[in-house]
Amino acid sequence: MIDTISVIPVKGIPDIRKGDALGRLIVDRVKAQGESFRAGDIAVVSQKIVSKAEGRVVSLSKVIPSDFAKTIANNGGKDPRLVEVVLRESDKIIRMRGGHLITETKQGFICANAGVDQSNVGSKESVTLLPRDSDAAADRIRKTIHQITGRVVPVIITDTFGRAWRMGQVNFAIGVSGMKPIHDYRGTRDMYRRKLQVTEIAVADELACAAELVMNKADRVPVALIRGYKAPRGQGRIKELLRPEESDLFR
Amino acid sequence: MIDTISVIPVKGIPDIRKGDALGRLIVDRVKAQGESFRAGDIAVVSQKIVSKAEGRVVSLSKVIPSDFAKTIANNGGKDPRLVEVVLRESDKIIRMRGGHLITETKQGFICANAGVDQSNVGSKESVTLLPRDSDAAADRIRKTIHQITGRVVPVIITDTFGRAWRMGQVNFAIGVSGMKPIHDYRGTRDMYRRKLQVTEIAVADELACAAELVMNKADRVPVALIRGYKAPRGQGRIKELLRPEESDLFR
Repeated sequence: MIDTISVIPVKGIPDIRKGDALGRLIVDRVKAQGESFRAGDIAVVSQKIVSKAEGRVVSLSKVIPSDFAKTIANNGGKDPRLVEVVLRESDKIIRMRGGHLITETKQGFICANAGVDQSNVGSKESVTLLPRDSDAAADRIRKTIHQITGRVVPVIITDTFGRAWRMGQVNFAIGVSGMKPIHDYRGTRDMYRRKLQVTEIAVADELACAAELVMNKADRVPVALIRGYKAPRGQGRIKELLRPEESDLFR
Repeated sequence: MIDTISVIPVKGIPDIRKGDALGRLIVDRVKAQGESFRAGDIAVVSQKIVSKAEGRVVSLSKVIPSDFAKTIANNGGKDPRLVEVVLRESDKIIRMRGGHLITETKQGFICANAGVDQSNVGSKESVTLLPRDSDAAADRIRKTIHQITGRVVPVIITDTFGRAWRMGQVNFAIGVSGMKPIHDYRGTRDMYRRKLQVTEIAVADELACAAELVMNKADRVPVALIRGYKAPRGQGRIKELLRPEESDLFR
Protein backbone atom coordinates (compact mmCIF):
# COMPACT_ATOMS: atom_id res chain seq x y z
CA MET A 1 0.00 0.00 0.00
CA ILE A 2 1.00 3.56 -0.65
CA ASP A 3 1.75 6.00 2.11
CA THR A 4 1.90 9.75 2.36
CA ILE A 5 4.21 11.53 -0.04
CA SER A 6 6.00 14.71 1.04
CA VAL A 7 7.07 17.49 -1.29
CA ILE A 8 9.83 19.44 0.45
CA PRO A 9 11.07 22.79 -0.90
CA VAL A 10 14.85 23.20 -0.85
CA LYS A 11 15.36 26.84 0.03
CA GLY A 12 18.22 29.25 -0.13
CA ILE A 13 19.89 28.03 -3.33
CA PRO A 14 22.13 30.99 -4.25
CA ASP A 15 22.20 32.72 -7.60
CA ILE A 16 23.78 30.18 -9.97
CA ARG A 17 26.75 31.00 -12.21
CA LYS A 18 28.41 29.05 -14.97
CA GLY A 19 30.41 26.15 -13.61
CA ASP A 20 28.63 25.92 -10.24
CA ALA A 21 28.39 22.35 -8.92
CA LEU A 22 24.64 21.92 -8.51
CA GLY A 23 24.78 18.51 -6.82
CA ARG A 24 27.01 19.81 -4.04
CA LEU A 25 24.93 22.98 -3.61
CA ILE A 26 21.74 20.94 -3.31
CA VAL A 27 23.29 18.64 -0.71
CA ASP A 28 24.49 21.68 1.26
CA ARG A 29 21.10 23.39 1.21
CA VAL A 30 19.25 20.24 2.19
CA LYS A 31 21.61 19.89 5.14
CA ALA A 32 21.30 23.60 6.00
CA GLN A 33 17.56 23.27 6.47
CA GLY A 34 18.03 20.36 8.88
CA GLU A 35 17.12 17.65 6.39
CA SER A 36 19.14 14.81 5.01
CA PHE A 37 18.63 12.63 1.96
CA ARG A 38 16.90 9.33 2.55
CA ALA A 39 16.92 6.30 0.31
CA GLY A 40 14.14 6.71 -2.24
CA ASP A 41 14.02 10.49 -2.12
CA ILE A 42 13.69 12.07 -5.54
CA ALA A 43 15.36 15.42 -6.28
CA VAL A 44 13.47 17.66 -8.71
CA VAL A 45 15.55 20.50 -10.16
CA SER A 46 14.32 23.44 -12.22
CA GLN A 47 15.79 23.95 -15.70
CA LYS A 48 16.72 27.51 -14.89
CA ILE A 49 19.57 26.69 -12.53
CA VAL A 50 20.80 23.82 -14.71
CA SER A 51 20.97 26.11 -17.72
CA LYS A 52 22.79 28.79 -15.74
CA ALA A 53 25.31 26.28 -14.36
CA GLU A 54 25.93 25.08 -17.92
CA GLY A 55 26.40 28.64 -19.13
CA ARG A 56 23.39 28.31 -21.43
CA VAL A 57 22.73 32.04 -21.23
CA VAL A 58 22.69 34.20 -24.35
CA SER A 59 23.04 37.96 -24.46
CA LEU A 60 20.56 39.26 -27.03
CA SER A 61 22.85 42.19 -27.79
CA LYS A 62 25.24 39.73 -29.44
CA VAL A 63 22.58 38.05 -31.63
CA ILE A 64 22.26 39.01 -35.28
CA PRO A 65 18.81 37.97 -36.50
CA SER A 66 18.36 36.33 -39.90
CA ASP A 67 15.87 37.70 -42.41
CA PHE A 68 13.50 34.84 -41.57
CA ALA A 69 13.67 35.68 -37.84
CA LYS A 70 12.95 39.33 -38.70
CA THR A 71 9.91 38.36 -40.75
CA ILE A 72 8.47 36.19 -37.97
CA ALA A 73 9.21 38.84 -35.37
CA ASN A 74 7.51 41.53 -37.45
CA ASN A 75 4.37 39.42 -37.88
CA GLY A 76 4.14 38.70 -34.14
CA GLY A 77 5.39 41.91 -32.61
CA LYS A 78 8.40 40.16 -31.10
CA ASP A 79 12.09 40.90 -30.65
CA PRO A 80 13.82 39.56 -33.81
CA ARG A 81 16.91 38.63 -31.77
CA LEU A 82 14.77 36.48 -29.46
CA VAL A 83 13.12 34.82 -32.47
CA GLU A 84 16.59 34.15 -33.89
CA VAL A 85 17.64 32.38 -30.68
CA VAL A 86 14.39 30.34 -30.71
CA LEU A 87 15.03 29.25 -34.31
CA ARG A 88 18.62 28.26 -33.52
CA GLU A 89 17.34 26.04 -30.68
CA SER A 90 14.69 24.42 -32.90
CA ASP A 91 14.64 21.52 -35.33
CA LYS A 92 11.12 22.22 -36.63
CA ILE A 93 8.36 24.77 -36.41
CA ILE A 94 5.19 22.99 -35.28
CA ARG A 95 2.81 25.97 -35.22
CA MET A 96 3.27 29.66 -35.83
CA ARG A 97 0.46 32.19 -35.45
CA GLY A 98 0.39 35.76 -34.21
CA GLY A 99 3.14 36.04 -31.64
CA HIS A 100 3.11 32.31 -30.86
CA LEU A 101 5.90 30.06 -31.99
CA ILE A 102 5.62 26.38 -31.03
CA THR A 103 8.67 24.42 -32.11
CA GLU A 104 10.33 21.08 -31.68
CA THR A 105 13.63 21.71 -29.94
CA LYS A 106 16.87 19.98 -30.84
CA GLN A 107 16.34 17.89 -27.68
CA GLY A 108 12.92 16.74 -28.99
CA PHE A 109 10.61 18.81 -26.76
CA ILE A 110 7.60 20.54 -28.28
CA CYS A 111 6.98 23.81 -26.50
CA ALA A 112 6.60 27.55 -26.97
CA ASN A 113 9.74 29.49 -27.95
CA ALA A 114 11.92 26.35 -27.76
CA GLY A 115 12.08 26.85 -23.99
CA VAL A 116 14.04 30.10 -24.38
CA ASP A 117 13.17 32.14 -21.31
CA GLN A 118 13.70 35.71 -20.15
CA SER A 119 12.66 35.45 -16.49
CA ASN A 120 15.02 35.01 -13.55
CA VAL A 121 18.11 35.67 -15.66
CA GLY A 122 19.27 38.96 -14.20
CA SER A 123 19.88 41.07 -17.26
CA LYS A 124 16.93 42.23 -19.32
CA GLU A 125 19.03 41.53 -22.41
CA SER A 126 19.81 37.90 -21.49
CA VAL A 127 17.85 34.70 -22.04
CA THR A 128 18.39 31.12 -20.92
CA LEU A 129 18.32 28.15 -23.29
CA LEU A 130 17.23 24.67 -22.29
CA PRO A 131 20.11 22.48 -21.08
CA ARG A 132 21.90 20.79 -23.95
CA ASP A 133 21.33 17.32 -22.47
CA SER A 134 19.12 17.28 -19.38
CA ASP A 135 19.57 13.53 -18.84
CA ALA A 136 23.32 14.08 -18.57
CA ALA A 137 22.74 17.01 -16.20
CA ALA A 138 20.47 14.82 -14.06
CA ASP A 139 23.14 12.08 -14.11
CA ARG A 140 25.77 14.46 -12.80
CA ILE A 141 23.56 15.71 -9.97
CA ARG A 142 22.54 12.16 -9.04
CA LYS A 143 26.14 10.97 -8.96
CA THR A 144 27.29 13.92 -6.85
CA ILE A 145 24.50 13.37 -4.33
CA HIS A 146 25.47 9.70 -4.17
CA GLN A 147 29.17 10.46 -3.75
CA ILE A 148 28.60 12.90 -0.89
CA THR A 149 25.69 11.28 0.94
CA GLY A 150 25.84 7.63 -0.10
CA ARG A 151 22.15 7.84 -0.98
CA VAL A 152 20.65 6.63 -4.23
CA VAL A 153 18.46 9.59 -5.24
CA PRO A 154 16.79 9.74 -8.67
CA VAL A 155 16.90 13.21 -10.23
CA ILE A 156 14.38 14.93 -12.51
CA ILE A 157 15.09 18.19 -14.38
CA THR A 158 11.94 20.21 -15.13
CA ASP A 159 10.57 23.15 -17.05
CA THR A 160 7.12 24.73 -17.24
CA PHE A 161 5.44 24.37 -20.64
CA GLY A 162 2.00 25.16 -22.00
CA ARG A 163 -0.28 22.40 -23.28
CA ALA A 164 -2.58 21.89 -26.24
CA TRP A 165 -6.25 22.55 -25.34
CA ARG A 166 -5.59 23.68 -21.76
CA MET A 167 -4.96 27.09 -20.23
CA GLY A 168 -1.93 27.75 -18.06
CA GLN A 169 1.41 26.05 -17.85
CA VAL A 170 2.47 23.07 -15.77
CA ASN A 171 5.84 21.58 -14.95
CA PHE A 172 7.19 18.83 -17.22
CA ALA A 173 10.16 16.49 -16.86
CA ILE A 174 12.88 17.37 -19.39
CA GLY A 175 15.63 15.16 -17.98
CA VAL A 176 15.77 12.13 -15.74
CA SER A 177 18.34 9.92 -14.07
CA GLY A 178 18.08 6.90 -11.76
CA MET A 179 14.42 6.08 -12.44
CA LYS A 180 12.13 5.15 -15.32
CA PRO A 181 9.92 8.13 -16.24
CA ILE A 182 6.87 5.95 -16.92
CA HIS A 183 5.08 3.56 -14.58
CA ASP A 184 4.04 0.67 -16.78
CA TYR A 185 0.95 -1.09 -15.48
CA ARG A 186 0.83 -3.65 -18.32
CA GLY A 187 -0.26 -6.97 -16.92
CA THR A 188 -1.61 -5.34 -13.75
CA ARG A 189 -5.24 -6.03 -12.90
CA ASP A 190 -7.82 -3.59 -11.60
CA MET A 191 -9.81 -3.98 -8.39
CA TYR A 192 -12.12 -6.42 -10.19
CA ARG A 193 -9.11 -8.43 -11.44
CA ARG A 194 -9.57 -7.15 -15.00
CA LYS A 195 -6.49 -6.06 -16.92
CA LEU A 196 -6.04 -2.29 -16.71
CA GLN A 197 -6.80 -0.26 -19.81
CA VAL A 198 -4.56 2.64 -18.93
CA THR A 199 -1.20 1.00 -18.87
CA GLU A 200 1.31 3.81 -18.79
CA ILE A 201 1.42 6.73 -16.38
CA ALA A 202 4.03 9.43 -17.00
CA VAL A 203 5.05 9.62 -13.36
CA ALA A 204 8.13 11.79 -14.03
CA ASP A 205 5.77 14.49 -15.33
CA GLU A 206 3.49 14.01 -12.31
CA LEU A 207 6.46 14.30 -9.96
CA ALA A 208 7.50 17.47 -11.83
CA CYS A 209 4.01 18.88 -11.24
CA ALA A 210 4.05 17.96 -7.56
CA ALA A 211 7.42 19.69 -7.18
CA GLU A 212 6.22 22.86 -8.91
CA LEU A 213 3.67 23.34 -6.14
CA VAL A 214 6.55 24.27 -3.79
CA MET A 215 8.67 25.99 -6.48
CA ASN A 216 7.07 29.39 -6.27
CA LYS A 217 8.48 31.29 -9.22
CA ALA A 218 8.83 34.52 -7.30
CA ASP A 219 10.83 32.90 -4.50
CA ARG A 220 14.20 31.25 -4.74
CA VAL A 221 13.03 27.62 -4.71
CA PRO A 222 14.43 25.88 -7.79
CA VAL A 223 14.72 22.47 -6.10
CA ALA A 224 12.30 20.16 -4.32
CA LEU A 225 12.67 16.77 -2.66
CA ILE A 226 9.90 14.24 -3.03
CA ARG A 227 9.84 11.70 -0.24
CA GLY A 228 7.78 8.52 0.03
CA TYR A 229 7.19 7.82 -3.66
CA LYS A 230 8.53 4.55 -5.04
CA ALA A 231 9.95 5.57 -8.40
CA PRO A 232 9.88 2.93 -11.17
CA ARG A 233 13.30 1.23 -11.11
CA GLY A 234 15.77 1.46 -13.94
CA GLN A 235 17.99 3.99 -15.65
CA GLY A 236 15.36 5.88 -17.62
CA ARG A 237 15.93 8.45 -20.31
CA ILE A 238 13.71 11.43 -21.14
CA LYS A 239 13.25 10.07 -24.66
CA GLU A 240 10.81 7.52 -23.21
CA LEU A 241 8.43 10.44 -22.53
CA LEU A 242 8.64 11.89 -26.04
CA ARG A 243 6.08 10.53 -28.47
CA PRO A 244 7.66 9.54 -31.80
CA GLU A 245 6.40 11.67 -34.66
CA GLU A 246 4.89 8.69 -36.52
CA SER A 247 2.52 7.90 -33.63
CA ASP A 248 1.66 11.54 -32.89
CA LEU A 249 -1.63 12.99 -34.07
CA PHE A 250 -0.76 16.61 -33.28
CA ARG A 251 2.18 17.69 -35.40
CA MET B 1 7.68 31.11 2.16
CA ILE B 2 6.35 27.75 1.14
CA ASP B 3 6.53 24.74 3.37
CA THR B 4 6.32 21.02 2.82
CA ILE B 5 3.24 19.72 1.07
CA SER B 6 1.82 16.31 2.00
CA VAL B 7 -0.12 14.08 -0.35
CA ILE B 8 -2.16 11.68 1.77
CA PRO B 9 -3.94 8.66 0.25
CA VAL B 10 -7.47 8.10 1.56
CA LYS B 11 -7.77 4.34 1.73
CA GLY B 12 -10.61 1.90 2.08
CA ILE B 13 -13.25 3.71 0.03
CA PRO B 14 -15.79 0.94 -0.68
CA ASP B 15 -17.10 -0.01 -4.08
CA ILE B 16 -19.32 2.90 -5.12
CA ARG B 17 -22.92 2.46 -6.28
CA LYS B 18 -25.36 4.92 -7.79
CA GLY B 19 -26.63 7.36 -5.18
CA ASP B 20 -23.77 6.92 -2.71
CA ALA B 21 -22.95 10.12 -0.82
CA LEU B 22 -19.28 10.61 -1.67
CA GLY B 23 -18.68 13.56 0.66
CA ARG B 24 -19.82 11.61 3.70
CA LEU B 25 -17.86 8.50 2.65
CA ILE B 26 -14.69 10.55 2.24
CA VAL B 27 -15.12 12.16 5.66
CA ASP B 28 -15.67 8.70 7.20
CA ARG B 29 -12.60 7.18 5.59
CA VAL B 30 -10.38 10.14 6.51
CA LYS B 31 -11.53 9.72 10.11
CA ALA B 32 -11.07 5.93 9.97
CA GLN B 33 -7.41 6.32 9.15
CA GLY B 34 -6.86 8.59 12.13
CA GLU B 35 -6.80 11.81 10.14
CA SER B 36 -9.06 14.81 10.23
CA PHE B 37 -9.58 17.63 7.77
CA ARG B 38 -7.61 20.79 8.42
CA ALA B 39 -8.31 24.23 7.05
CA GLY B 40 -6.65 24.51 3.65
CA ASP B 41 -6.63 20.79 2.89
CA ILE B 42 -7.59 20.01 -0.70
CA ALA B 43 -9.55 16.84 -1.52
CA VAL B 44 -8.75 15.26 -4.87
CA VAL B 45 -11.31 12.74 -6.08
CA SER B 46 -11.01 10.37 -9.02
CA GLN B 47 -13.64 10.58 -11.78
CA LYS B 48 -14.36 6.89 -11.51
CA ILE B 49 -16.16 7.05 -8.16
CA VAL B 50 -17.96 10.28 -9.08
CA SER B 51 -19.28 8.69 -12.28
CA LYS B 52 -20.37 5.58 -10.42
CA ALA B 53 -22.15 7.60 -7.71
CA GLU B 54 -23.94 9.55 -10.47
CA GLY B 55 -24.95 6.31 -12.18
CA ARG B 56 -22.92 7.26 -15.27
CA VAL B 57 -22.40 3.60 -16.14
CA VAL B 58 -23.55 2.19 -19.46
CA SER B 59 -24.04 -1.46 -20.25
CA LEU B 60 -22.69 -2.08 -23.74
CA SER B 61 -25.22 -4.87 -24.27
CA LYS B 62 -27.94 -2.19 -24.40
CA VAL B 63 -26.17 0.02 -26.94
CA ILE B 64 -27.19 -0.11 -30.61
CA PRO B 65 -24.35 1.30 -32.71
CA SER B 66 -25.06 3.67 -35.61
CA ASP B 67 -23.68 2.99 -39.06
CA PHE B 68 -21.05 5.68 -38.50
CA ALA B 69 -19.94 4.02 -35.26
CA LYS B 70 -19.70 0.69 -37.08
CA THR B 71 -17.55 2.21 -39.81
CA ILE B 72 -15.14 3.79 -37.31
CA ALA B 73 -15.02 0.60 -35.26
CA ASN B 74 -14.26 -1.50 -38.33
CA ASN B 75 -11.42 0.79 -39.38
CA GLY B 76 -9.85 0.69 -35.92
CA GLY B 77 -10.62 -2.83 -34.77
CA LYS B 78 -12.82 -1.57 -31.94
CA ASP B 79 -16.13 -2.55 -30.39
CA PRO B 80 -18.82 -0.61 -32.36
CA ARG B 81 -20.95 -0.28 -29.21
CA LEU B 82 -18.03 1.39 -27.40
CA VAL B 83 -17.50 3.75 -30.35
CA GLU B 84 -21.21 4.57 -30.28
CA VAL B 85 -20.98 5.55 -26.60
CA VAL B 86 -17.89 7.68 -27.33
CA LEU B 87 -19.71 9.50 -30.14
CA ARG B 88 -22.75 10.16 -27.93
CA GLU B 89 -20.46 11.75 -25.33
CA SER B 90 -18.70 13.91 -27.92
CA ASP B 91 -19.39 17.27 -29.52
CA LYS B 92 -16.60 17.03 -32.10
CA ILE B 93 -14.04 14.60 -33.42
CA ILE B 94 -10.61 16.23 -33.14
CA ARG B 95 -8.47 13.39 -34.57
CA MET B 96 -9.27 9.90 -35.78
CA ARG B 97 -6.61 7.48 -36.97
CA GLY B 98 -6.25 3.74 -36.65
CA GLY B 99 -7.92 2.77 -33.39
CA HIS B 100 -7.47 6.23 -31.88
CA LEU B 101 -10.39 8.57 -31.42
CA ILE B 102 -9.65 11.97 -29.86
CA THR B 103 -12.80 13.99 -29.33
CA GLU B 104 -14.06 17.08 -27.62
CA THR B 105 -16.55 15.95 -25.00
CA LYS B 106 -19.84 17.70 -24.30
CA GLN B 107 -18.13 19.07 -21.16
CA GLY B 108 -15.37 20.62 -23.30
CA PHE B 109 -12.49 18.21 -22.55
CA ILE B 110 -10.29 16.99 -25.38
CA CYS B 111 -9.21 13.42 -24.69
CA ALA B 112 -9.17 9.90 -26.07
CA ASN B 113 -12.52 8.09 -26.28
CA ALA B 114 -14.38 11.01 -24.65
CA GLY B 115 -13.21 9.71 -21.26
CA VAL B 116 -15.32 6.56 -21.65
CA ASP B 117 -13.50 3.92 -19.61
CA GLN B 118 -13.72 0.18 -19.13
CA SER B 119 -11.44 -0.33 -16.13
CA ASN B 120 -12.57 -0.64 -12.51
CA VAL B 121 -16.24 -0.94 -13.48
CA GLY B 122 -16.93 -4.53 -12.46
CA SER B 123 -18.66 -5.95 -15.49
CA LYS B 124 -16.67 -6.50 -18.66
CA GLU B 125 -19.69 -5.23 -20.58
CA SER B 126 -19.98 -1.93 -18.67
CA VAL B 127 -18.23 1.39 -19.17
CA THR B 128 -18.18 4.62 -17.19
CA LEU B 129 -18.84 8.03 -18.72
CA LEU B 130 -17.33 11.26 -17.43
CA PRO B 131 -19.51 12.99 -14.83
CA ARG B 132 -22.14 15.21 -16.45
CA ASP B 133 -20.94 18.29 -14.54
CA SER B 134 -17.79 17.73 -12.51
CA ASP B 135 -17.85 21.25 -11.03
CA ALA B 136 -21.28 20.51 -9.57
CA ALA B 137 -20.02 17.16 -8.26
CA ALA B 138 -17.06 18.93 -6.64
CA ASP B 139 -19.46 21.51 -5.15
CA ARG B 140 -21.56 18.78 -3.54
CA ILE B 141 -18.54 17.04 -2.01
CA ARG B 142 -17.09 20.33 -0.76
CA LYS B 143 -20.40 21.33 0.85
CA THR B 144 -20.84 17.94 2.53
CA ILE B 145 -17.31 18.04 3.96
CA HIS B 146 -18.01 21.54 5.24
CA GLN B 147 -21.35 20.57 6.78
CA ILE B 148 -19.91 17.59 8.63
CA THR B 149 -16.47 18.88 9.63
CA GLY B 150 -16.82 22.66 9.54
CA ARG B 151 -13.70 22.79 7.37
CA VAL B 152 -13.41 24.76 4.15
CA VAL B 153 -11.85 22.18 1.81
CA PRO B 154 -11.51 22.85 -1.93
CA VAL B 155 -12.30 19.81 -4.08
CA ILE B 156 -10.82 18.72 -7.42
CA ILE B 157 -12.28 15.93 -9.58
CA THR B 158 -9.67 14.25 -11.82
CA ASP B 159 -9.21 11.84 -14.68
CA THR B 160 -6.11 10.49 -16.42
CA PHE B 161 -5.73 11.67 -20.04
CA GLY B 162 -3.03 11.32 -22.65
CA ARG B 163 -1.23 14.37 -24.03
CA ALA B 164 -0.12 15.61 -27.41
CA TRP B 165 3.61 14.93 -28.06
CA ARG B 166 4.23 13.03 -24.81
CA MET B 167 4.04 9.34 -23.93
CA GLY B 168 1.95 8.11 -21.02
CA GLN B 169 -1.04 9.58 -19.29
CA VAL B 170 -1.18 11.98 -16.36
CA ASN B 171 -3.97 13.12 -14.10
CA PHE B 172 -5.93 16.25 -15.09
CA ALA B 173 -8.48 18.32 -13.20
CA ILE B 174 -11.95 17.91 -14.74
CA GLY B 175 -13.94 19.64 -11.99
CA VAL B 176 -13.16 22.11 -9.25
CA SER B 177 -14.87 23.80 -6.32
CA GLY B 178 -13.69 26.22 -3.66
CA MET B 179 -10.50 27.34 -5.40
CA LYS B 180 -9.31 28.96 -8.62
CA PRO B 181 -7.69 26.36 -10.89
CA ILE B 182 -5.01 28.77 -12.10
CA HIS B 183 -2.40 30.64 -10.09
CA ASP B 184 -2.09 33.98 -11.82
CA TYR B 185 1.34 35.55 -11.34
CA ARG B 186 0.56 38.65 -13.41
CA GLY B 187 2.22 41.64 -11.81
CA THR B 188 4.54 39.43 -9.75
CA ARG B 189 8.24 40.04 -10.11
CA ASP B 190 11.04 37.47 -10.34
CA MET B 191 14.05 37.26 -8.08
CA TYR B 192 15.66 40.12 -10.00
CA ARG B 193 12.49 42.22 -9.64
CA ARG B 194 11.60 41.78 -13.32
CA LYS B 195 8.01 41.01 -14.20
CA LEU B 196 7.50 37.26 -14.66
CA GLN B 197 7.01 36.00 -18.19
CA VAL B 198 5.11 32.89 -17.25
CA THR B 199 2.07 34.34 -15.63
CA GLU B 200 -0.38 31.47 -15.31
CA ILE B 201 0.26 28.09 -13.72
CA ALA B 202 -2.52 25.50 -13.95
CA VAL B 203 -2.19 24.46 -10.32
CA ALA B 204 -5.39 22.36 -10.32
CA ASP B 205 -3.75 20.12 -12.93
CA GLU B 206 -0.54 20.01 -10.89
CA LEU B 207 -2.50 19.10 -7.75
CA ALA B 208 -4.26 16.38 -9.77
CA CYS B 209 -0.84 15.01 -10.79
CA ALA B 210 0.46 15.12 -7.23
CA ALA B 211 -2.63 13.19 -6.07
CA GLU B 212 -2.25 10.53 -8.76
CA LEU B 213 1.10 9.56 -7.24
CA VAL B 214 -0.79 8.02 -4.30
CA MET B 215 -3.80 6.86 -6.37
CA ASN B 216 -2.35 3.56 -7.49
CA LYS B 217 -4.79 2.30 -10.09
CA ALA B 218 -4.56 -1.28 -8.90
CA ASP B 219 -5.39 -0.39 -5.29
CA ARG B 220 -8.55 1.13 -3.98
CA VAL B 221 -7.31 4.70 -3.56
CA PRO B 222 -9.64 7.02 -5.49
CA VAL B 223 -9.18 9.96 -3.11
CA ALA B 224 -6.19 11.93 -1.83
CA LEU B 225 -5.81 14.84 0.54
CA ILE B 226 -3.25 17.50 -0.21
CA ARG B 227 -2.09 19.37 2.86
CA GLY B 228 0.05 22.48 3.05
CA TYR B 229 -0.69 24.00 -0.34
CA LYS B 230 -2.28 27.44 -0.41
CA ALA B 231 -4.86 27.13 -3.18
CA PRO B 232 -5.66 30.31 -5.14
CA ARG B 233 -8.75 31.82 -3.52
CA GLY B 234 -12.07 32.11 -5.26
CA GLN B 235 -14.85 29.94 -6.60
CA GLY B 236 -13.18 28.64 -9.72
CA ARG B 237 -14.76 26.69 -12.54
CA ILE B 238 -13.10 24.06 -14.72
CA LYS B 239 -13.86 26.17 -17.79
CA GLU B 240 -10.97 28.43 -16.78
CA LEU B 241 -8.62 25.54 -17.64
CA LEU B 242 -10.11 24.88 -21.07
CA ARG B 243 -8.53 26.84 -23.90
CA PRO B 244 -11.13 28.48 -26.14
CA GLU B 245 -11.05 27.08 -29.67
CA GLU B 246 -10.18 30.43 -31.24
CA SER B 247 -6.92 30.67 -29.28
CA ASP B 248 -6.00 26.99 -29.69
CA LEU B 249 -3.40 25.98 -32.27
CA PHE B 250 -4.08 22.23 -32.03
CA ARG B 251 -7.63 21.54 -33.14
